[in-house]
Amino acid sequence: MASTQDSNDTAPLVLIHRLPRFNISFTHWLRPKFYPLEPSDPSYATLAPSARVLLPVGPTPVDSGTLDLFPAVECVVGSSAGLNHIDLAECRRRGVRVTSAGEAFSDDVADYAIGLLIDVLRRVSAANRFVRAGLWPVKDEYPLGSKLGGKRVGIVGLGSIGSRIATRLEAFGCVIAYNSRNKKASVPFPYYTNVHDLAASSDALIICCALSNETHHIINKDVLTALGKKGVIVNVGRGALVDEKELVQFLVRNEIGGAGLDVFENEPVVPEELYALDNVVLSPHKAVATPESFAAVKEVIIGNLEAFFSNKPLLSQVKSE
Amino acid sequence: MASTQDSNDTAPLVLIHRLPRFNISFTHWLRPKFYPLEPSDPSYATLAPSARVLLPVGPTPVDSGTLDLFPAVECVVGSSAGLNHIDLAECRRRGVRVTSAGEAFSDDVADYAIGLLIDVLRRVSAANRFVRAGLWPVKDEYPLGSKLGGKRVGIVGLGSIGSRIATRLEAFGCVIAYNSRNKKASVPFPYYTNVHDLAASSDALIICCALSNETHHIINKDVLTALGKKGVIVNVGRGALVDEKELVQFLVRNEIGGAGLDVFENEPVVPEELYALDNVVLSPHKAVATPESFAAVKEVIIGNLEAFFSNKPLLSQVKSE
Repeated sequence: MASTQDSNDTAPLVLIHRLPRFNISFTHWLRPKFYPLEPSDPSYATLAPSARVLLPVGPTPVDSGTLDLFPAVECVVGSSAGLNHIDLAECRRRGVRVTSAGEAFSDDVADYAIGLLIDVLRRVSAANRFVRAGLWPVKDEYPLGSKLGGKRVGIVGLGSIGSRIATRLEAFGCVIAYNSRNKKASVPFPYYTNVHDLAASSDALIICCALSNETHHIINKDVLTALGKKGVIVNVGRGALVDEKELVQFLVRNEIGGAGLDVFENEPVVPEELYALDNVVLSPHKAVATPESFAAVKEVIIGNLEAFFSNKPLLSQVKSE
Repeated sequence: MASTQDSNDTAPLVLIHRLPRFNISFTHWLRPKFYPLEPSDPSYATLAPSARVLLPVGPTPVDSGTLDLFPAVECVVGSSAGLNHIDLAECRRRGVRVTSAGEAFSDDVADYAIGLLIDVLRRVSAANRFVRAGLWPVKDEYPLGSKLGGKRVGIVGLGSIGSRIATRLEAFGCVIAYNSRNKKASVPFPYYTNVHDLAASSDALIICCALSNETHHIINKDVLTALGKKGVIVNVGRGALVDEKELVQFLVRNEIGGAGLDVFENEPVVPEELYALDNVVLSPHKAVATPESFAAVKEVIIGNLEAFFSNKPLLSQVKSE
């Protein structure tokens, strides 16, 4: 599969960096414009030190050790919406620019967040289980769900994804508020400076902010307590935004109303206590995953590479803090 | 529970009409303004012949035989959105007015339809099964769903529910078209005079029209063929709008893409072939069911009764064809 760069191949090198478990080649589409340099390439040892661009596949970590290995790297082209696997501070210190997937995944993640919220509130997956278990003809009564319209939904992180979630929720007649690092100008929704107060004023929280040292376990015991017994959590951000042990305890003890979780602290491990709960919807980190969004992210990556190698502004450069 | 109407009780009679399986009293909230006359009431035989209003519980049928039994009835106060269980032509012939639940259920049904569509397209329930079966750590690959944005969604029946579905779909960036008895003025979406042509131009069909002789099996073999291999069906209307045997065959043979079904031809029986399919979401006729919508329908019923007994226009009278 890996063809060595021959003397006529002047395509710019793109150093592919991947965890061993991501062992499928999905960078063939970079050719022939670019030369994806895989560790399996016979010329890897020769060429890698001169590569100016690093492309970490999915959540493959990029830290100071990685950057030490590839001293010529000037730009890390990310392929995901969240970049918590890339040490942004270290990149900044070294003058290495970083790009994200931009808005390629935003619509799909927003759609999925709404899907999870409707599912938990209206018990869609639970209804599906009920019917498939053959219970409908036997048990006439089925526990009611709860109406989406009029619900106060708190969005944690009103960026590219969060603002799309807000647009969708408005069409359902929800009452929206948000928390984010800063109050957004020209946003009509009430802003809360902290997640605790947002939770106390919300029937549901949708978590879609970036994971950083500041947002690690932003949803903790106090926030869950403030959300209350009927409150619902939807997480389409990163698992570690939520103190998962606490969340499991709150769910097991019926101290919150339910949860729709696409992400977990220790993926692909999901706390087994959740399997038994009817008010929880579990999903294998797939809010981003459609053929359409994958096509869009390839376009963003190619656009960033073209921009980099022609000294134009990058399409989706991550801003320094 | 049933207290006989005593000589001081001048509350107007409301004759409660119910299938034996709906044996729970949920008309106590009519008191004390009205006197709900149940078959179990000791005065039933004496009072029923003079009752001017009939309240059929849920889908309890009202046909010419029913109306023969209660000759004083001038108004049938329905408690559901669909009125296919009431013989509207026969009521019209006898000058009996009929009311529906009006818009009490419309938002909830629209929400649920969107929930089912996201679920089928993005495989939410299937993902939930996948995780709960412990497969995530084992099988790295998970079949992709499909993006909602840009999908051409055909709405069959653009009434109170269908128009709310359209509002929601617009926020997701869907391309909307519709079929209904007549083209609606002031609706921007393309109108198709027949469902076959709508299906041929759609990626998904959402069925939310009234069930009548004209719409029985409106989704038949030809329509499913026109919808095509990747097409998705969502039915929140009535089971008999779809030729269920054909639908099952199309799903089993992978001749359409998937289905989200809240209603079935022979409820509570669900064709068992569907249990094995991962691209089908099954739900026990609960799109209408939230505490909020039940409160709203009670208000509509009381409003109609008050209007009837004070000779004012009914709130949600069904128009004659």
